[in-house]
Amino acid sequence: MFSGAQISLYPMSDDFIGIILGAIKALDPYRPHFRIETDDVSTLIVGPPEQLFPAMRDLFVAAAQTGAHCVLSATVSRGCPGEPDDPICTPQNDMSSALPLSDRIDAAREAVAAAPWTGQAIAAQFSLYPLGVGHHMDEIYGCIDFLKNSGVFDRPKNFCTRLKGDAGPVFATLAEAFLRFGAPEGHVTLDLTVSANSPSAKV
Amino acid sequence: MFSGAQISLYPMSDDFIGIILGAIKALDPYRPHFRIETDDVSTLIVGPPEQLFPAMRDLFVAAAQTGAHCVLSATVSRGCPGEPDDPICTPQNDMSSALPLSDRIDAAREAVAAAPWTGQAIAAQFSLYPLGVGHHMDEIYGCIDFLKNSGVFDRPKNFCTRLKGDAGPVFATLAEAFLRFGAPEGHVTLDLTVSANSPSAKV
Repeated sequence: MFSGAQISLYPMSDDFIGIILGAIKALDPYRPHFRIETDDVSTLIVGPPEQLFPAMRDLFVAAAQTGAHCVLSATVSRGCPGEPDDPICTPQNDMSSALPLSDRIDAAREAVAAAPWTGQAIAAQFSLYPLGVGHHMDEIYGCIDFLKNSGVFDRPKNFCTRLKGDAGPVFATLAEAFLRFGAPEGHVTLDLTVSANSPSAKV
Repeated sequence: MFSGAQISLYPMSDDFIGIILGAIKALDPYRPHFRIETDDVSTLIVGPPEQLFPAMRDLFVAAAQTGAHCVLSATVSRGCPGEPDDPICTPQNDMSSALPLSDRIDAAREAVAAAPWTGQAIAAQFSLYPLGVGHHMDEIYGCIDFLKNSGVFDRPKNFCTRLKGDAGPVFATLAEAFLRFGAPEGHVTLDLTVSANSPSAKV
């Protein structure tokens, strides 16, 4: 299954180039597993679906730990028709996504509870789009059920869901939402915004 | 039909607060038509579907004209199930979106040719998601046909399409892609990134 993301990192700082170049070193451990291409708008990462969110987490936490107000924005996709199927995208473990919805909700919750903490508080909001299937709202409502009990659920907003907490469980929750819901071989996309150190964040 | 967007503006500058507060005045002419709500991650605008892209254009151009490297990121949505139908979202003119695909492609092209220029060069990339219909890829391929002849088409990228040119025709092209494709009353979302003044932009 072709899987990857177009990601962008926005440090609200005159030193945005230095912060980006420093943070991007956090992707080094993932480079053997990913194809990475950069232009002036975004960086493409293509690789195993379950490594996409850990890679984005490590990139974002490295930038946020400079103390600057930073945002990461990403369009994450799996199973996109028209993309070549790439052996680099083979999942490295079985996500058992053919299980009934209730079992997948339980498995997702356990994965988030086991996620490592990073010490970096973040806010996130995202929209999940299971495309080309008749029951896309069933999968979305199932996913919302999981999210509400994830421990990092903040509140629903128009067009998206807002999470908050440590970057570890927040990115684990995003990964579970992306990988466990929607048809196993279906076209699923996730539109993500993650923010840290905002001067207008509520305590 | 409920329509709106979650939008965020990212000036890569120590003066990001000043740039945002200055640019946001560009939304004043739209305020009578929109409901606007802001938190630390994004600003919600809800209103007539055909005014969403002009409002985003004016906000972004105001920020970009400071000369700072600026990005606008948005999740744009129409017809989302589960959102209350809002009288503020009634289209102000007939988009004739029940026409055959070829006629809609022609109408979209004419609308872009008639768009006012702003003097601000930008790069944009976006993904269009017609949700919950069996033929979502037909509508996407029809939209791609329009885009390739829009005059601002740059190139396809994985998971998205890249545009470049003056902010006027670029935002007009985005509006046409969003409004003319996908079922007229269907759930359509568009995930957008717009960039100006990037130091790594190719000339």
